[in-house]
Amino acid sequence: ILQTSSLSNCYLLTYVRWIKDIVVAVTDENVEAMRSTLQKYGHTRVSLAAAGATRHRSIFNGLKALAEDQEGCKLSKPEVVIIHDAVRPFVEEDILLRVVTAAKEHGAAGAIRPLVSTVISPSADGCLDHSLERARYRASEMPQAFLFDVIYGAYQQCSDYDLEFGTECLQLALKYGHTKAKLVEGSPDLWKVTYKHDLYAAESIIKEKISQEICIITDPKEDQEPIGHLLEEVLKSELINVNITSRALDHTDRDIQPTISDRCCSFVCVNVVASEFQETRKLLSVLEESNLSVLYPVVVISVHFLDFALGPPSQQMESLMWIREFAKEVKKRNILLCGLLINYSQVGNMLLCTDCEFTSWKLILL
Amino acid sequence: ILQTSSLSNCYLLTYVRWIKDIVVAVTDENVEAMRSTLQKYGHTRVSLAAAGATRHRSIFNGLKALAEDQEGCKLSKPEVVIIHDAVRPFVEEDILLRVVTAAKEHGAAGAIRPLVSTVISPSADGCLDHSLERARYRASEMPQAFLFDVIYGAYQQCSDYDLEFGTECLQLALKYGHTKAKLVEGSPDLWKVTYKHDLYAAESIIKEKISQEICIITDPKEDQEPIGHLLEEVLKSELINVNITSRALDHTDRDIQPTISDRCCSFVCVNVVASEFQETRKLLSVLEESNLSVLYPVVVISVHFLDFALGPPSQQMESLMWIREFAKEVKKRNILLCGLLINYSQVGNMLLCTDCEFTSWKLILL
Repeated sequence: ILQTSSLSNCYLLTYVRWIKDIVVAVTDENVEAMRSTLQKYGHTRVSLAAAGATRHRSIFNGLKALAEDQEGCKLSKPEVVIIHDAVRPFVEEDILLRVVTAAKEHGAAGAIRPLVSTVISPSADGCLDHSLERARYRASEMPQAFLFDVIYGAYQQCSDYDLEFGTECLQLALKYGHTKAKLVEGSPDLWKVTYKHDLYAAESIIKEKISQEICIITDPKEDQEPIGHLLEEVLKSELINVNITSRALDHTDRDIQPTISDRCCSFVCVNVVASEFQETRKLLSVLEESNLSVLYPVVVISVHFLDFALGPPSQQMESLMWIREFAKEVKKRNILLCGLLINYSQVGNMLLCTDCEFTSWKLILL
Repeated sequence: ILQTSSLSNCYLLTYVRWIKDIVVAVTDENVEAMRSTLQKYGHTRVSLAAAGATRHRSIFNGLKALAEDQEGCKLSKPEVVIIHDAVRPFVEEDILLRVVTAAKEHGAAGAIRPLVSTVISPSADGCLDHSLERARYRASEMPQAFLFDVIYGAYQQCSDYDLEFGTECLQLALKYGHTKAKLVEGSPDLWKVTYKHDLYAAESIIKEKISQEICIITDPKEDQEPIGHLLEEVLKSELINVNITSRALDHTDRDIQPTISDRCCSFVCVNVVASEFQETRKLLSVLEESNLSVLYPVVVISVHFLDFALGPPSQQMESLMWIREFAKEVKKRNILLCGLLINYSQVGNMLLCTDCEFTSWKLILL
């Protein structure tokens, strides 16, 4: 597989197990940053190629990296290659599979979408020359897939003009490879993140994806007072579109692992003895082993119980403050640790929760 | 002016003073909801027309409403008409002016944007027939403007096939009005809100627009202790991209009005005597007179000072609780009232702030 321009969805593509190699075209000034990112997140299937001055030149460089046996290079020529843009970060495995299957049969295939606006042709004086009938045309999107020999052969034959001004790989396969690409209907999520408003949309989609599931972690020995289950019921009635589960966590049997592979990124961790953080510590150590936070930020809310009758709140809160250091530490690994203090004796049952930097507390009057 | 489909950007268009009439095409089942919305927000320049089964039929109905003298109807035939989509809510006055000016000269004009994806033509078997050279085409967007007689004449001549399957008004003006539309480059904000991710983007743009300015309101008599100016300095150093101003508010001289017409939607109101809410009350009454909250939600943060040494916090907070009722009341008029309690003697200078429903307090340890 080959990807142009940047790194953003290496993360997603590396989770598609049947993709053997990923080649990313990177400009000289970004090679170092890219290398350190790949190492940091353990993307061992990703190789780099030099980006060219145009889209087609970058793709050609990527194909060369796959085609040519280079000394010390782990890449080998594949049967099928997928070409994808980094600016379409929400590509799903399903569409990748469909374009690859179609490419095996037809030699080339690409995702398409209906046109959102009518396309027109301007005349030289900036006036309307003619408009196209919208229903007869489609927007050509990514991913596209090709038999490697078809697309590599096309790039080897194409002219400098094509490399400089062309935008469509399917057209190259048609013109130089005499291969008519199969067109495959894609989802709206394949849209190209181009403008500032697209960045806003992308941010919201990611937030939505990682907030659809909450897992409540409790002490396995906590039989008498099933706080975890009470919390589960309350959250279920409050958060209608969120899937909420609850489980006891034993560090040795690792029954948290199935949850983690389900891409649950939000955890509420109930600590019976406030100052010990036992459940929270267990969860964090399991999370760190799981590599979940490589893909998405993970939020852990650590719940503690306080009785303000036993002393002024500020003093008791002080005793929990060392968690700040802990939060700073795990934040480096993309885990956001927050605190929630529950006081069950005074001030009308107030709840205190911290932000993930432990610089402020939220107090909820029940 | 004429707008198809819905109501969302009536709000914006009614703020463009030189637009005489706005006609909105509405389906039968939405007429009542639309009428009550128009009345609620005082949109006196907006008239309704019946929506048709297709885009072109809706537009034709709107043009008829403008062209034909109907009994008791305040509409009259304009020289120039603008056609716009409700799904492009971020249209700016500048582009409206540019298409109208061009339409006066050329008879027709429309906004265009570069193509984001390459456009292709599929063959009957779902394969690529040919691709268009992206640089030679443009996406036709809205708004478009026409000499009224040109576009109305075109609609009167056009066929049932046009009305059923056509998508481009500029093409009708060309085909039936022999008028070559001038194409005017628009901004990315003219994009069509079509998919779920577009709604996310729209939401973020609105949030950004209304959070660029904060006005701090203080007591005019408060000379000794200029809390407003202190707060202004702190906020300026914390919120770098936000324009922060501070002013004393006198209900009689209304010097808040210039701020309101600048579309500032966020106010911080410093009350020296905690339980009296004097400044907050003044501001709210000015805001209600100004109609600012018709266009955007307005946020008012009411600041109060407490000394917890004088009694338990829960008791003192209780005395401020009647503001809840006040918050409920102004919320009906799109004003979100929140509270911020500052305690300057104990618990390490803690700040307590409420959400706009006064159901929770946020405590910030300084």
